[in-house]
Amino acid sequence: MGPGPINADPRVLRAMSAQLVGQYDPAMTAYMNETMELYRGVFRTANAATLVVDGTSRAGIEAALVSLIEPGDRVLVPVFGRFGHLLREIAERCGAEVHVVEREWGTVFTPAEIERAIVETRPKLVAIVHGDTSTTLAQPLDELGALCDKHGALLYTDATASLGGNLFEVDAWGIDVATAGLQKCLAGPSGSAPITLSERAVGVVNARKSIEAGIRSVGDAVSASPIRSNYFDLAMILDYWGPKRLNHHTEATTMLYGARECARLLVEEGMPEAVERHRLHGSAMVAGLVGLGLELFGDQGVRMNNVVGVEIPAGIDGDAARAALLADYGIEIGTSFGPLHGRVWRIGTMGYNARRDTVLTTLAALEQVLRRGGVPVTAGGGVGAAIDFYGER
Amino acid sequence: MGPGPINADPRVLRAMSAQLVGQYDPAMTAYMNETMELYRGVFRTANAATLVVDGTSRAGIEAALVSLIEPGDRVLVPVFGRFGHLLREIAERCGAEVHVVEREWGTVFTPAEIERAIVETRPKLVAIVHGDTSTTLAQPLDELGALCDKHGALLYTDATASLGGNLFEVDAWGIDVATAGLQKCLAGPSGSAPITLSERAVGVVNARKSIEAGIRSVGDAVSASPIRSNYFDLAMILDYWGPKRLNHHTEATTMLYGARECARLLVEEGMPEAVERHRLHGSAMVAGLVGLGLELFGDQGVRMNNVVGVEIPAGIDGDAARAALLADYGIEIGTSFGPLHGRVWRIGTMGYNARRDTVLTTLAALEQVLRRGGVPVTAGGGVGAAIDFYGER
Repeated sequence: MGPGPINADPRVLRAMSAQLVGQYDPAMTAYMNETMELYRGVFRTANAATLVVDGTSRAGIEAALVSLIEPGDRVLVPVFGRFGHLLREIAERCGAEVHVVEREWGTVFTPAEIERAIVETRPKLVAIVHGDTSTTLAQPLDELGALCDKHGALLYTDATASLGGNLFEVDAWGIDVATAGLQKCLAGPSGSAPITLSERAVGVVNARKSIEAGIRSVGDAVSASPIRSNYFDLAMILDYWGPKRLNHHTEATTMLYGARECARLLVEEGMPEAVERHRLHGSAMVAGLVGLGLELFGDQGVRMNNVVGVEIPAGIDGDAARAALLADYGIEIGTSFGPLHGRVWRIGTMGYNARRDTVLTTLAALEQVLRRGGVPVTAGGGVGAAIDFYGER
Repeated sequence: MGPGPINADPRVLRAMSAQLVGQYDPAMTAYMNETMELYRGVFRTANAATLVVDGTSRAGIEAALVSLIEPGDRVLVPVFGRFGHLLREIAERCGAEVHVVEREWGTVFTPAEIERAIVETRPKLVAIVHGDTSTTLAQPLDELGALCDKHGALLYTDATASLGGNLFEVDAWGIDVATAGLQKCLAGPSGSAPITLSERAVGVVNARKSIEAGIRSVGDAVSASPIRSNYFDLAMILDYWGPKRLNHHTEATTMLYGARECARLLVEEGMPEAVERHRLHGSAMVAGLVGLGLELFGDQGVRMNNVVGVEIPAGIDGDAARAALLADYGIEIGTSFGPLHGRVWRIGTMGYNARRDTVLTTLAALEQVLRRGGVPVTAGGGVGAAIDFYGER
């Protein structure tokens, strides 16, 4: 019940125990095509270039940034939490001239603030986190695509923490590139990074295409400004996933099975229904935490549905309380990073763990741990408030 | 029965269907530590820096090269097949000044040839493939560590295709960095890349350490020449796997379970015993192919135990024959790359598929496909020769 990774859905685990097939077996390439189509549904996009990168969500971020950014490119990174710093860090390693604007952790940007920064820095790319798990908040993105388009910038966003549990509309919001992972609302393990690219982004990437020596044919592309990474070269990866089936990496078969099943779960449920499920159980958790007398962290108007931050009450050792929850109740919750470490707990209700029983069990266990830690709590206050919340519906 | 990926061992698949645990759960960090120790056994090394990179075998290669190579560094790549070209390609993208020496596909280098190239180019790093699946041959490496040491170069090798099925001795051979994958003799799926680094290599990597913004503390390292990739920054990855447990990527839990089980299988069997099993069944396959009247490809004195190349007989369409084997018998074999595409088939006996029944079934099916394709074959010649081979033992 932390900020992720969380328990995987048993259907995902079963899918991942299936026997392997060969890399170019028609069954395998059919699974790859199905996975592409399923993630178009998850990302709410018609983008042909929708696939998974073989690595964790951070691999998806780096694949996007290293493929889009040429050394010297100006990149604007609005930072409102730890993962904004990660985007800045990766963009810097790609050789970008990075401009950062920052908001205090616990708040997000207004569109006008971001537009002002765009006007000042004239970036080729705006890179921004959607939901930053470190603060539990989600930056509203619905106006940002149009803003970037108006000023001639590409828009990249990292939706790892938010996708599946919060409204996320690649096409309607005009997002050029989005990446994610399986270990949050997608109910799978870390290790596969769904990604989608608009036609415009594909054009930028393909302009740098360089087919590698050893499999290059006469007439194949050799760019003057090749992408700095081979593994994350989206131009080659797109040809691997496309009809050319260019030999690149050997697709991680078991992770593909897992990624496919994660998307099937969401698409079968319906994306609006999945978001509503996260809203329901996330709100019940919040009601329960308030019922226990805890203070919430951050601007609750833009909190993600799937994770909430609470101030660690005075007088209790936050890490010892987390250890007790894990050891005595088998429940994991998280602390946070940097300025919030030891000050804030993060409690998730996401993916397979967005359920009534997990919410009530967590609240019941937390009440016991708080009481034994010397924090005054109303007996049954958390569970009662959550049940009342569910009952009202 | 191709050059890999191959069927996974059912024990690996079962391990990968286990429920997830949290990233810093004591159970998870204990699995990580166990996995490090197990891979020391697989790599035959005492290197503390032994772990898995989250990505395919190609991710392991890039992590090694991008972490070792600073732009402008001289790198020598002896190339004797397609994957030598891959090393060259990745080293070039890392900004290295790459020097290549080449041998005709189907042959390998003598130590003297490599030493001559080292003397001529004075590289910081020699990067060489151990077993190049494209040609099925393994470059003898037992003298190379001492040669590199003598000339002040680091030695990196890609053991993806060979590890577990052929003698491979990191410490005894003086290899600084070696990487692999699970999808060959390790009997698992692609998606996790075991890697080991000598103390000397760790020193080179750590000299470039830069802890990323967002989690950096006062006094933490900031390098003037940071590693160009964040995801593949082995200095940070080592701190994630080490006692600091620095937050980096979110370890791919299911792939870790798989990687751990692959290593447990090999260590329980014993590395010499695993190599002998690959030699036995690989040799039986070779005897059977010769018994069918096929010509072998490449220098048989340095063939890997786990894969053999055969010339596609005149008069038959190689790809149609492979398609028939797959469609009618459920058996996949491979062709090769570049100059060998359509000229050579590659037939593997590796990992879970290094068994008597897989060898005999493949030979029986291949005989039928060859006959129906118009190739003259002795009835029972392949299976007979393999059974004779097994019987002699």
